[in-house]
Amino acid sequence: MPLLDLLFGRPLASAEEESEQLGTLSGVPIFGLDALGSAAYGPEAALTLLIPLGVAGIHYIVPISIAVIALLGIVYFSYRQTIAAYPQGGSSYAVARQNLGNFAGLLAGTALMVDFVLVVAVGVAAGIAALVSAVPTLQTHTLSLCLLVLLLITLVNLRGVKTTGAVFMFPTYLFIGCLLTVLGIGLLRTILASGHPTAIIPPPRPSTAAQAAGAWLLLRSFANGCTAMTGVEAVSTGSTAFREPRVKIARRTLSFIIGVLVLLLAGIAWTCRAYEVSATRPDQPGYQTVLSLITTAVVGRNWFYYLTIVSILMVLVLQANTAFTGFPNVCRAIAQDGYLPYSFTSRGRRLVYSHGIFLLAFLSAALLIAFRGVTDRLIPLFAVGAFLAFTLSQAGMVAHWKRAGGVHARHSMLINGVGAIATAITVVIVIASKFVEGAWITLIAIPGILFLMRAVRRHYDRARHELASPYPLLTSKLHSPIVVVPIEGWNKVTQKALRFALTLSSEIIAFQVSTSDEPHDLEKRWGTLVESPARETGLPVPTLKVLRSPYRAVIHPTVNYIHMLEREHPDREIAVVIPQLVEKLWYEYFLHRRRGELLAALLVLEDEPRINIINVPWHLQA
Amino acid sequence: MPLLDLLFGRPLASAEEESEQLGTLSGVPIFGLDALGSAAYGPEAALTLLIPLGVAGIHYIVPISIAVIALLGIVYFSYRQTIAAYPQGGSSYAVARQNLGNFAGLLAGTALMVDFVLVVAVGVAAGIAALVSAVPTLQTHTLSLCLLVLLLITLVNLRGVKTTGAVFMFPTYLFIGCLLTVLGIGLLRTILASGHPTAIIPPPRPSTAAQAAGAWLLLRSFANGCTAMTGVEAVSTGSTAFREPRVKIARRTLSFIIGVLVLLLAGIAWTCRAYEVSATRPDQPGYQTVLSLITTAVVGRNWFYYLTIVSILMVLVLQANTAFTGFPNVCRAIAQDGYLPYSFTSRGRRLVYSHGIFLLAFLSAALLIAFRGVTDRLIPLFAVGAFLAFTLSQAGMVAHWKRAGGVHARHSMLINGVGAIATAITVVIVIASKFVEGAWITLIAIPGILFLMRAVRRHYDRARHELASPYPLLTSKLHSPIVVVPIEGWNKVTQKALRFALTLSSEIIAFQVSTSDEPHDLEKRWGTLVESPARETGLPVPTLKVLRSPYRAVIHPTVNYIHMLEREHPDREIAVVIPQLVEKLWYEYFLHRRRGELLAALLVLEDEPRINIINVPWHLQA
Repeated sequence: MPLLDLLFGRPLASAEEESEQLGTLSGVPIFGLDALGSAAYGPEAALTLLIPLGVAGIHYIVPISIAVIALLGIVYFSYRQTIAAYPQGGSSYAVARQNLGNFAGLLAGTALMVDFVLVVAVGVAAGIAALVSAVPTLQTHTLSLCLLVLLLITLVNLRGVKTTGAVFMFPTYLFIGCLLTVLGIGLLRTILASGHPTAIIPPPRPSTAAQAAGAWLLLRSFANGCTAMTGVEAVSTGSTAFREPRVKIARRTLSFIIGVLVLLLAGIAWTCRAYEVSATRPDQPGYQTVLSLITTAVVGRNWFYYLTIVSILMVLVLQANTAFTGFPNVCRAIAQDGYLPYSFTSRGRRLVYSHGIFLLAFLSAALLIAFRGVTDRLIPLFAVGAFLAFTLSQAGMVAHWKRAGGVHARHSMLINGVGAIATAITVVIVIASKFVEGAWITLIAIPGILFLMRAVRRHYDRARHELASPYPLLTSKLHSPIVVVPIEGWNKVTQKALRFALTLSSEIIAFQVSTSDEPHDLEKRWGTLVESPARETGLPVPTLKVLRSPYRAVIHPTVNYIHMLEREHPDREIAVVIPQLVEKLWYEYFLHRRRGELLAALLVLEDEPRINIINVPWHLQA
Repeated sequence: MPLLDLLFGRPLASAEEESEQLGTLSGVPIFGLDALGSAAYGPEAALTLLIPLGVAGIHYIVPISIAVIALLGIVYFSYRQTIAAYPQGGSSYAVARQNLGNFAGLLAGTALMVDFVLVVAVGVAAGIAALVSAVPTLQTHTLSLCLLVLLLITLVNLRGVKTTGAVFMFPTYLFIGCLLTVLGIGLLRTILASGHPTAIIPPPRPSTAAQAAGAWLLLRSFANGCTAMTGVEAVSTGSTAFREPRVKIARRTLSFIIGVLVLLLAGIAWTCRAYEVSATRPDQPGYQTVLSLITTAVVGRNWFYYLTIVSILMVLVLQANTAFTGFPNVCRAIAQDGYLPYSFTSRGRRLVYSHGIFLLAFLSAALLIAFRGVTDRLIPLFAVGAFLAFTLSQAGMVAHWKRAGGVHARHSMLINGVGAIATAITVVIVIASKFVEGAWITLIAIPGILFLMRAVRRHYDRARHELASPYPLLTSKLHSPIVVVPIEGWNKVTQKALRFALTLSSEIIAFQVSTSDEPHDLEKRWGTLVESPARETGLPVPTLKVLRSPYRAVIHPTVNYIHMLEREHPDREIAVVIPQLVEKLWYEYFLHRRRGELLAALLVLEDEPRINIINVPWHLQA
């Protein structure tokens, strides 16, 4: 079995596409991991900012979570409508572009791309944070572990979407089961203990309050908490992957995902307050994630704790998979409109858009390396892209309903309008409160990518315009070319090249550069070696031109000679026959001069449209 | 001024060679730096092994140095004879090859190459050690400093030999002057103090004796001390660089170098004993080189100390320069005999053998990185190569005199015979006493390089045999080729390729692969676009062949089709016309599919001698 097949599976034909489609249960792991996994770092990101408030800070997590859940509800109803209106896949890019125009579409697309890169980086980093909570000795290897996991995900995704669904189903439902069990036991214990349960292993005592709660701090905490909502758009973006009835199954999948997410967010906030669990600092020894602290407090450090941590690890790490489905799709859509290189539109051997997968893996690896794999440092970059895409998508839906008109549409327009306004406000809050910590990076990246996209499109437009031709083949002014054969001496390669040249044209010039390092005796022998045999058979006679080169340069004099020839014959094509030695073994490559290849490269680089290169290969058997 | 000119100087013509020749004073820095610089690490290497003996160990440095100086004398007289016998450049390689045969020559050449690489590595490392002695805070940056210095030397050498002579003259004579001054003052003070001078700043007290002196320890110390002799062969190897009278000037240069070296070695040994200077451990804080300790003891830490250290630093670092002259020369000589790739024989823009310089820079950088830039760790690898080359060269000279015959020759044979035996014994001592510490690396490298050289020669022999042709051009069986034009659609590039194809042959096949991702409508339009215009002008009519590809692969079906065509026409050449988009800006390269280039590469790699590639360029103006 070839290595590629072993790693990525056998190639899939285009006609096999139908079998790659999803139902609700298989759709949740594919499109829900991002949203569900967010529960692991969203509340923690909010709590980390509350550390300076001490015990009092823990109590603020409940109102902040309520605000996040409320916003989540608004977004949920908005995206239900998007799914219905765009069953063919309503990514923020498509919705914004169709309804608000090109620029808004590209802006939404860019925001999505940035968001997906961060989903991968944050997902992997948070997963490794969970692992480090359980096995503190691994803390020094955080970054290496992150990159290893990223590599594995990339390989799995290059195999294609169906396989990934099967791989991720079990951990997803294990994660939901474990967390709901922990939170359920916690709730039960709290009720039994009249609101003040005793932790099995108590969490570290919160620091004494260093400052009082201010509106600004709570706003920043809310902005961090909003990262729990990222990934909600995945279902509407990728809805083409669902089987029929597509809208119904997609909506059911979305409802399931949001429902579980609300339960998790509410449960985590409630349990934190009841058990007085506060966040710990990720850059200090003894760091544990909030979910690890909660689980320890509720069930202790038994086998169930480790099962839960493993499920969190798996889900957080595999969350990145949502992006590996979404990112290449967005890239493909944008590339089909000519704003990204065409290669993003071509599917690889396994029906996946391989180029998008490679780009995503590269960018998220870069982010992980730059931020050393620490979730807390990545969070400030995160929510901007996601909420910008939300806003543009919802605003686009408003325009959509406005155009559609009718009684039903007014109701829908209201829902999406509320969604657009709420998410727009959130964007402003996130940018303002996270600017210094890292949101500025996103704010630089988005216009940068936009600029690149427009440049790509401009290039394609110009190239298409330049190459387009509605006319039939022009058959006038066809002359056989002047053939130049640069030679180094008299051998079988030279002979082969000359023979091939003789079949192409009647004007053949053999060109030799003579340097003091390389003796030359061809001028004397040319008559017997070439001229006489050619004349005897009635063939055109190739002429020999020898040039002396004092600086031992061979290539440049040859290039100059060919250019001169081209200028002297402004109506003729020049064909340069370059004998090419092909070695049997790769290392033999270094044993022979690569003058031919260098010459060809230099000739092609010059803007001389009438110079054509002919490679005549000689396959060395030695 | 182009960047290359700025960095490396203007190109030199072959005729400018004469002006690159040297006299005695300018020859010493070029060919003597290696030998003279050795004084800085040879005695130190011997002393380092004596550390466990405590104060008693210091006294052994005098007899050990006397043994080294005696050996040096033998080698000196031997090489004087080599210079006279081989005024055209008597490298160990040439002498051994001419007199002892191919294998001995290659062995000597290999030994020399290994030696030169170590000269560079040890020279740079020891130079930085001197710097670190004066400025201890730099100790953590040892490796980076080594690599930086290596880069600078490489650049200087790519400029050519004359320039380097001028650059290195001042530091060489400064070094000789400073060291002789320090040793002279030391001698004077010792005599005035009746053998027991008081150090201005006393060296650290030697450790108490941990063991007694044994013959084995003294032998190992001697072997280390022999590294002080490396580089003595440089004059005889490069004697072509001297001006006439060549033999006389070369011999005078050698005498000067050896004379100064003997003075330095004797002086260092004497001063060490008088001032009780012992070596310090290079891997411990507070490390200082022996020369730094001696200078501190004799003159204190004043401006003269720093001047001396700077001169040692410069000479040791520039010592590497000897190898940058010698290594490319050895490579060229071996390459001219066909045992190394031909590229080592071609001189670059500045009349230097650039490939040898690059290889040497790369190998010595690798050694420095592997051994972290610590001289002491490199020493065990060192003397093997140098003394093996000495031995083979002297043995070759014995054979030379034997063949020459006569009274004078017997005397000469005796001198070279003593040299050969003495250096052979030293090789055995060095290998035996340094095997575990690193000599084994050299002992693996030498046969490895030998094997590679023989493989290279075998390949060249076979290739020459395969390509050689004494016959005139064969003019029978010339048919015009079948031309295949792979096309993606109808545009100006396709038209240009077809037009060029029409000038080459009457059989033209346009080949299109149709995938589900790329629509195709060319079959319907071919008649009007191509067939009718061709027929009307009386031209051959290109046929269109369309292939459906279910797996979206385009390249491989094209390759397969061309191979099939080749098999169907066993007596015809195939010419594949590949339209090639050439972008104006390098980053535009990534915007277009590179199918043409990939196709060409795959077609060339296959061992199909009748498939020729024709690149028709389209220079995109967009």
